[in-house]
This record gives sequence, C-alpha cells and structure tokens, in this order.
Amino acid sequence: MKTIGYAAFSTDAVMAPYHFERRALRPNDVAIEILFCGVCHSDLHTVNGDWGPQPYPLIPGHEIVGRVQAVGSAVVHYKEGDRVAVGCLVDSCQQCDQCEKHAEQYCRTGITPTYGAPDRVDGVITQGGYSKHIVVREEFVLRIPENMDLAKAAPILCAGITTYSPLRTWQVGRGSRVGVVGLGGLGHMAVKLAHAMGAEVTVISRSDQKKAQAIAMGAKAMLISSDTAAMNAAASAFDLIIDTVPVKHDVSIYTPLLDVDGTLVIVGQVGPLNELMTIPLIMGRRRIAGSLIGGIAETQEVLNFCAEHDVYPDCEMIRMDQINEAFSRLKEGDLARRFVIDMASLNPN
Amino acid sequence: MKTIGYAAFSTDAVMAPYHFERRALRPNDVAIEILFCGVCHSDLHTVNGDWGPQPYPLIPGHEIVGRVQAVGSAVVHYKEGDRVAVGCLVDSCQQCDQCEKHAEQYCRTGITPTYGAPDRVDGVITQGGYSKHIVVREEFVLRIPENMDLAKAAPILCAGITTYSPLRTWQVGRGSRVGVVGLGGLGHMAVKLAHAMGAEVTVISRSDQKKAQAIAMGAKAMLISSDTAAMNAAASAFDLIIDTVPVKHDVSIYTPLLDVDGTLVIVGQVGPLNELMTIPLIMGRRRIAGSLIGGIAETQEVLNFCAEHDVYPDCEMIRMDQINEAFSRLKEGDLARRFVIDMASLNPN
Repeated sequence: MKTIGYAAFSTDAVMAPYHFERRALRPNDVAIEILFCGVCHSDLHTVNGDWGPQPYPLIPGHEIVGRVQAVGSAVVHYKEGDRVAVGCLVDSCQQCDQCEKHAEQYCRTGITPTYGAPDRVDGVITQGGYSKHIVVREEFVLRIPENMDLAKAAPILCAGITTYSPLRTWQVGRGSRVGVVGLGGLGHMAVKLAHAMGAEVTVISRSDQKKAQAIAMGAKAMLISSDTAAMNAAASAFDLIIDTVPVKHDVSIYTPLLDVDGTLVIVGQVGPLNELMTIPLIMGRRRIAGSLIGGIAETQEVLNFCAEHDVYPDCEMIRMDQINEAFSRLKEGDLARRFVIDMASLNPN
Repeated sequence: MKTIGYAAFSTDAVMAPYHFERRALRPNDVAIEILFCGVCHSDLHTVNGDWGPQPYPLIPGHEIVGRVQAVGSAVVHYKEGDRVAVGCLVDSCQQCDQCEKHAEQYCRTGITPTYGAPDRVDGVITQGGYSKHIVVREEFVLRIPENMDLAKAAPILCAGITTYSPLRTWQVGRGSRVGVVGLGGLGHMAVKLAHAMGAEVTVISRSDQKKAQAIAMGAKAMLISSDTAAMNAAASAFDLIIDTVPVKHDVSIYTPLLDVDGTLVIVGQVGPLNELMTIPLIMGRRRIAGSLIGGIAETQEVLNFCAEHDVYPDCEMIRMDQINEAFSRLKEGDLARRFVIDMASLNPN
C-alpha cells in the first residue's frame, strides 16, 4: 500500500514528508488508517541518534490510534471499521517464557519496536505512526474501548503503559503512598493512573511551578526536592516512587523517601545515573528498579482502565506540519502533557 | 560487674586491654560469659572511625557466643548455663511496626547496636564482644542449638544473618540461581547458606584464585568478572545476586547477569557505588536493593538452620592478643573465612 508519513532523514531530526510503501497484508495482518499519533520524547531521542545510529529515512511514532481498514485472511479479532491502537512494539518471538507470560517487552529474542528495526519476516525496517497508515500483525493490535475518546487516547500507548505497568507490578492500590518524580509526559500519566487506583500521590519536583496542575491531576501534595526540611520530613513516606526524570540525576536524594521495602522505579532516564549511595538502600531494604513499557495484554488493560476511570492524558493537538516546532518545545522543557498529531492534517498526496 | 575487654582508644584502632564495668542486672537482663567472638570487618571500620566519630574507649565485637552466667528476676527464657549468642543489636523500641513484625533492624527509632551507642535506659555507651562478659536484655539474646559447635558459631551472628536474610527475603530455594560477588567473610557464608537452601550457586570474582575454596563450599561454578565472553554468556543467568564487595565498585557489570525481575542485593559496601547504568534495569525490570543484617527471630532461624544443615563459617581461631595482627590481615585482603577470638585466651585480670 502506498502511503505518506513524516520522516527524519538524518540526525538533524528535521521531519519532512516521505512517500513510502506499507507491506501487502499477510494472513495475520491488520491494516490501520492512523487517526492520531502521540509525540513521545523517545521519538525525538531516536531520530536524533541519541540512542545509537538509525536507518534513515525513519518515521517515528508509537502512540498510534486509528481505524481498521482491512484485515488479512486469518485475522480473527478485528474487522474493518474497528477502533484500534498500536503501541511501542509490533512483534516478538511469541514463544519464549516472557512472551508466554504476556511480558513481550522482555522477549528473550528482543522485541521488534514499532519503528527503526527490521521486520521479523521480511527484514524491512519498521516505520512508525507519524503516517497515514500502518500494517501490524494481529497479536500486537489493541482495541480502543467503546466509550474512549479517540483523540486523547494515543499517549496511553506509551506514557500510559510505561507508568501503569510498574504501578501494577508493585501492586499500588487504595491507600498506597506513591511519589512521582517529574511532571512531564510520563509523570502526569503516573499521577492520574495512581490516583485512579486509589493511591495517595505526591509529586516530587524541583519547583512548585506545576503545583496547581499536579493537584488538578489528582496529586495530594507537592514535595520540593530542594526544600531540605520538607524532604527530611518526608523520610520513609512512600511505598513506591516512579522516577520519570529523563536525564542523568541523583536518585539517592529520593531513596530515603521510601519506606522499608519500598521501591524507586526508573522509567525516564535511559543511560547513567549519578553515583549511588548504598546507605538508604541498606538501612531500609529499599530498592531501585527499572521498568520498560508493558506487555500487550497489560497495554489492553491500561486502555480499559483509562476508559473505565475516565483517565486521559492532557493532550495538545497539533498538525503534522507542526512536528518540528513540537520537537523544539519538547527539547526545551518538561511539559506536563503530550503533543498529539491529528493525522487528518496530513494530506495523503 | 567488673570485667575486661580489648578496646580501641582512638582512630588508630590499636586494641589494648581495658578494664570496665558491665551493668548490674535489670529484671529482664541476661549476663553472659563470652566464650567466642567473631571479628567482623565492620569492627575495624568502626574503631577506625571510617563510619563517623566514635566514643572511645570502644570495645567492638558483635558475633558473640557464650554461656548464661546469671539472669534478672523477670527473665523467662534463659537460665544459668544456657548456651547463648548475641548479634549486632542489643535493643530497639519494641513497639513500632517494624519491631512488631520482627524486623528490629529497621526499628523506626533506630536500633541500639551492640557497641558504640547509648543504652536506651541509662545512656551508658554499649560495649561489644571482645570482652569476658556482656549483659543484654532477654529479647536480644539468641539460643545456640544443642548440636551446634560453639567455637564455630560466632560468625553466624553477623556474616551469617546478613546473607541469610536476603536469601530468605528473596525466597531462595531449590533450583534458585544465586550469584555471590566476592568470597570474603560474608561471601563464603552466602555460598554455604544458598547451597544449603538448594540453590545453584555461582561465585563471581575478579580472579579464579579461590575457585577450589568456592567449589568446596558448595558453589557450582566460578565466573570471572574480567572474562567478557563468560560474563556475556551469563546474561540473565541469576535470580538473585548477593553483592558482598565492601568498597566502591561498579554494580552495572553485574546487573545484566540478572534474569527478568531479578535482584542484586548489596550487603557489603556502606557508601557510594559507581555511576549506575539504567539500561540493564529497565530492559529486564531488574532491581538493586540493600539489606541490613536481620531481625532477632530471623537470627534465631539462621542459627537453627545452620545447626540443622551443618553449615559453619570457616573460622580461624585467634587469641585475644592477636587482634591487632588480625585487623592488619583483614585490611590487606578478602579472606574467605572469619577470625574468631577464643575468649579463654583473655586473662580476666
């Protein structure tokens, strides 16, 4: 199928229109007309080459929402017209222990990410959601619940699942005390999801600039990390901290905030952290962990959860041709919301 | 009660005889004649002032084994002649949630360590086991099982419980794949205990110098951390790694060895670690934790476990007047055994 997207052509990450082919449907494939696509900070990191050399031209985008246009002969769960979504991965081995327990993100053979990696069948580089269409095997297609607002659902596919998965893994529920470090794309979803799960949520930030936003999203309080007295008073106050800071930083200022056996989960920074102090870990059997997006079943679960609890990302709708400007704004600051591309703005010719 | 011990008188950590008083028995106190005391690396760190200023003269020692000499009027569980032990803590608040769940080591008000801290009743600085006698409240006295060899039991009270507690917390059992980094006082106990629990144990070390020792202790294999090919081949190979390295080091070379959801537990280094790489954590939901000794009930449990499974530390018996030499040897290298002071060698006058 001929289609169009916005691709990066080099590490300067300047996005421009790009005509390309989506593969003809295999028996288990679903062809999707993309209606909305979220703009994730990792799109920018990837096209910039921050995480290694990339196969250009490269179309990013892994927060994809749309409508089924056609299905392959063996597809059983979807039909033309269905409201569907695609997240950060489009294939895995489907055979290892991790795939079998629905943790495809930790597939033993590695995942096939939605863009920038060879397809497992034909080796063609996958291209993401900044485009009019995508073709994905059925097992990696999600269903958008009936009552869900399509225009605001996209960021759930990455920012949503990335914070939902650790909240579930560490069994957050009514009365859990959850800290969220940073109130950007990931952080604001962590606050909303944890709040909807019944947790008492505190946003931990360098300033109180976003306090009103945090409270409006469901946070009970804001803790300013430079306020030594407040930080000392908050010692052992959290069962779980979701750390969304996307740059090198010092987690040892946060670990004393964990209660005995509490965990700080890193979901933002892919790279080094500062030297780690062991005393807060040893003195309270505290833990530091990482977490990567979520499996397919869990991604369906977060979509259902958001529909049921009326949880939506704060979205700022943009046109496809505003993507370069959006990337610049993303680079500058930590916005407590997500840009979402309205794909109707992309002329198919 | 007048008694004698070996104390440090300043940060030069030169140990010399010191006559002092043990308190008169309170109703809930047990007076113990000390027969053996293990020499822990933290004894040396403490008297050296490595962990902060100390109240000199200071008698270290928290791996204490002996016999009950007398009991206070309200003591119910011990009587004269009983074979008993004292570990790293001699008091806690006994009222907080942590004390109530037998995790006195994480007492909300802080523990009273066996030496170097004010007693909770009279404020007198506690003095440790490098001495002829000690007086400890009943709740912090352990029982030495009938069939246990007194002379070799002492190091179980710190090196034993410090490694036993994380093995239990992370539910090591038959078939668990356990890595042990470092084969010193803690590491050699970790190997023996994990092996006795039914785990497959691998020692991870900088050289294969201690391979025969490791295998004799129950390790299945030795992994040399400088052997890149072997380290790569061991990716995702462990459910739990006990890291006993007592100096600043890079744990990020070990985290990729953990399986998905695996944990590396730091029990050795009290202080900074190198910059932490998040990728191995994120890409497998791997975790880093700390762990501090164990509670009183769990310390009794490890004593019973060692008696039942015939697990003993490798001990090198020394005379009290050899302690300065033992400290020097401890400073030099990571011995895969513990020095134990035979307190019969200390003239009571």
